[in-house]
Amino acid sequence: MRRWNGWGDEAIEFALNEDALGFLATRIGNGNPVADASFEQACAQLGASRLPPHRLIDTSPATRLRNALGQSLPDWLKLRYGRIGPAPDGVAFPESGQEVRELINYARLYGVALIAHGGGTSVAGHLTVLDPFRLTLAVNTTRLCRLIHLDQQSQLATFGAGVLGPDLEAALRAHGFMLGHYPQSFEYSTLGGWIVTRSSGQQSLRYGRIEQTFAGGVVETPQGTLEVQAFPASAAGTDLRELVLGSEGRLGILTEATVRVSKVPEYEAFHAVFFPNWQQAEAAARELAQGRMGLSMLRLSNAVETVTMLALAGHKRLIGALETWLSLRGCRDGKCMLMIGVSGGKAQAKTAMRAALGLCREHKGVHIGRMMGDKWKQNRFRNVYLRNAAWQYGYAIDTVETAVDWSRVESMMHAVESAAETALAAHQEKVHVYTHLSHLYAQGASVYTTFVYRLSGNYEDDLVRWKALKHAVSSAIVDNGGTISHQHGVGSDHAPYLEAEKGAAGIAAMQAVFRHFDPEGLLNPGKLVPPQGLAA
Amino acid sequence: MRRWNGWGDEAIEFALNEDALGFLATRIGNGNPVADASFEQACAQLGASRLPPHRLIDTSPATRLRNALGQSLPDWLKLRYGRIGPAPDGVAFPESGQEVRELINYARLYGVALIAHGGGTSVAGHLTVLDPFRLTLAVNTTRLCRLIHLDQQSQLATFGAGVLGPDLEAALRAHGFMLGHYPQSFEYSTLGGWIVTRSSGQQSLRYGRIEQTFAGGVVETPQGTLEVQAFPASAAGTDLRELVLGSEGRLGILTEATVRVSKVPEYEAFHAVFFPNWQQAEAAARELAQGRMGLSMLRLSNAVETVTMLALAGHKRLIGALETWLSLRGCRDGKCMLMIGVSGGKAQAKTAMRAALGLCREHKGVHIGRMMGDKWKQNRFRNVYLRNAAWQYGYAIDTVETAVDWSRVESMMHAVESAAETALAAHQEKVHVYTHLSHLYAQGASVYTTFVYRLSGNYEDDLVRWKALKHAVSSAIVDNGGTISHQHGVGSDHAPYLEAEKGAAGIAAMQAVFRHFDPEGLLNPGKLVPPQGLAA
Repeated sequence: MRRWNGWGDEAIEFALNEDALGFLATRIGNGNPVADASFEQACAQLGASRLPPHRLIDTSPATRLRNALGQSLPDWLKLRYGRIGPAPDGVAFPESGQEVRELINYARLYGVALIAHGGGTSVAGHLTVLDPFRLTLAVNTTRLCRLIHLDQQSQLATFGAGVLGPDLEAALRAHGFMLGHYPQSFEYSTLGGWIVTRSSGQQSLRYGRIEQTFAGGVVETPQGTLEVQAFPASAAGTDLRELVLGSEGRLGILTEATVRVSKVPEYEAFHAVFFPNWQQAEAAARELAQGRMGLSMLRLSNAVETVTMLALAGHKRLIGALETWLSLRGCRDGKCMLMIGVSGGKAQAKTAMRAALGLCREHKGVHIGRMMGDKWKQNRFRNVYLRNAAWQYGYAIDTVETAVDWSRVESMMHAVESAAETALAAHQEKVHVYTHLSHLYAQGASVYTTFVYRLSGNYEDDLVRWKALKHAVSSAIVDNGGTISHQHGVGSDHAPYLEAEKGAAGIAAMQAVFRHFDPEGLLNPGKLVPPQGLAA
Repeated sequence: MRRWNGWGDEAIEFALNEDALGFLATRIGNGNPVADASFEQACAQLGASRLPPHRLIDTSPATRLRNALGQSLPDWLKLRYGRIGPAPDGVAFPESGQEVRELINYARLYGVALIAHGGGTSVAGHLTVLDPFRLTLAVNTTRLCRLIHLDQQSQLATFGAGVLGPDLEAALRAHGFMLGHYPQSFEYSTLGGWIVTRSSGQQSLRYGRIEQTFAGGVVETPQGTLEVQAFPASAAGTDLRELVLGSEGRLGILTEATVRVSKVPEYEAFHAVFFPNWQQAEAAARELAQGRMGLSMLRLSNAVETVTMLALAGHKRLIGALETWLSLRGCRDGKCMLMIGVSGGKAQAKTAMRAALGLCREHKGVHIGRMMGDKWKQNRFRNVYLRNAAWQYGYAIDTVETAVDWSRVESMMHAVESAAETALAAHQEKVHVYTHLSHLYAQGASVYTTFVYRLSGNYEDDLVRWKALKHAVSSAIVDNGGTISHQHGVGSDHAPYLEAEKGAAGIAAMQAVFRHFDPEGLLNPGKLVPPQGLAA
């Protein structure tokens, strides 16, 4: 059973061992464990549904609660403390485009706001009900999950847009294909969610961001059905896919999506390389990204993240031996770990890895083989469970991410980290901060920063702490020329920072597009961009 | 000096030798040479300019004529026969964003239509004045041509949007960089033109379509300046670049563009492989495109194109020897030529070529080395000059292109070719038709078909012939599920076929975007999509 107030399956626990807890205590002090509200207590918070009855709508408090929020830190605070706030008045589970159109007509008739809800894994407040006075219906898309068509020759698969990551991959694997889109939320996020939030996966270097794999689809909108045909490429005016990508439920409800799939590769491997310091590591990573080397993943941890990962890994003696060995090879304090992935035909992949490792050596990189890489692959979707474990011991974990050009990657990293480190000074709290570059491009990289800090034990205080931290790091991002999100989307948490990058003219254009498809403002109101007229 | 009524520089002549003429005569009969109108005769066609004077506007007939049309076949007919029709009332050559804003204000004040004019190489009627009753100003962007900024670390270059292909590459080469965008119009087309028509170049397999290299820019619109920031990637809502790409002058005038550039590669080579028949050639090409092999170009000619290229190549004895040799290796009538390019580090490129040639062998491909490839590279921008030569002998050459999924590539090729072959039957004229796949993707390929047919010697008859042919092939494209353009854009020639792929909802969305930026309908009116309300 999926956790209602945390990440993942209830049966899966990722413990923090004593060494890890000691590490955190040294850095930021002992945590303050908080007593969680029960599911029943949380349900009791919900007011009665105000929706006119409809055969497709479930108004039970349990269903409403499970579709009320996502996985952002403020969402967690609401769930853990049992301070739900406004929730949808009901949840519909449409099983066809026809049923979605029926729900849109219902919404128009009664002026009901519609919040499209996929896997509920948003970490940016996409799913929150912002206006408590407005009737609101969550449209859960997860029953739109069928493999509708597979064209093996053209490597195209059409799915119901609510299909979950693992179900999508399983359906494709049965035919020898895969999509290869692996965000950390993979286990619970949906294809449609990836598309409307412009998601990116861990192996995007090979398989592309969702923008590259989304080839076409069907969106039900208040202005009718928008069918986006799938072409290999086209110069025929505006690419309609791009209106759907990143639309975050403001344009319509995506019911079907066609994606470009790949043959399951013959071979896959992840290797780790340590560098003596950030400058050498970044230079190597940049050269690898700009070298078109045919790699499938590059992921570079800075020194604090490297230390943290080694500390949390357990296996104290093994890690101790590794560190001694690395130290003899020049990688001591300040060392940074680069993970390199290859996938494909065995000969091609091995050649690419050899070339990559050769380039790393020129930058004093020390190759330690596949051990850490295999471990990373094994835990690639497990690390999110650490958030549950940390919470149990009284620590909050949150992340923020951006992307910038290479010439600003290092200064961005320092700006975000130092903003975070001092953000809770007024609360006399320290923040443990570390960063990795999760997605590398020829132009630049995503800068993905994690914060660990102590819970206060009080809902209001924890919300204040989160807001202070979020504002500090988001301001650092836009002030340093980064995008407010590289892979999580905008939702409500990032919306205040969007105009800094889009400009007044860009925001107005986005509003014009959404107003065209949704003139009555029924769709996910208040998310992404403010209603017309409120920008500039 | 650039030709005013044909392609390219007046000093460059590409002759058709007797064998080539004999080949065409056998196929479609002897040509009917037409006497061209003189530049003076054509200028005399233009009515007096009706524009209120402005310091930036040149109203001389010579300048107006040189900025009146593009390179489509109907444009050629107008120029060659001296039947210009409506032309702009003046031409402005702005040198800054400020001057473009000034021109937009002028246009608003006097209700003047603005046609953005880059290199004037459109083959889809983007530049034509459609409404003779409307005051019209061509805005020639070619003085916006400076390299404004080069960030070597992030491999980003910002140019004035009117920079011509060769000037852009020369500016980058001085620093060891290149863009690598090589449409056949490269010598005269502009960066801005590539962007607003979603152009694609010959080596897009490595360097990407213009969509992949266009990172950001500045557009002057009647609603103000739209500045699109350049991020390596972003999940922050609508990608504003995508509103600019393919906007064909309907949204604003692009003044600056930032592009992702690459280091000049160490090594480059083009090899040719012949296959016994289309089926084997297509299967090999598809596997190469789906194999992520790190190639920079794939270009597959069908049997008739292969024969035509060999016939037009001259060097009769050399080609004869090659054909004998190929025949002994199983490539006789029906053989198809695949051109394979690699670029990059020498070892990496050679490994990729070896792997590609190995795969071709499995499909009975016969590798003939670099001779044909070197020849192709040498003539990559020269083949367009053949149009001038053919015209001199009384033949028209036109092309049409689309893109479809692999499962429909062969049927599309046959549909377009047979539509073309019979399109002039009512005129008792034959059409010589051949096709290549110019851009190959994992999902499918572009299908690029060339037609050669005889001129009638009469403007009206030639326009009727062209219309019959264009309608036949365009209908075949949309009826078979292709996009109306893979690389040339929509303009006015393809506009009637756009709704077949975008749907009424898609057309309405495009209209909404353009209406938002240009509520008075000043920008390139009538191109791309009909004015609001005329679609559905």
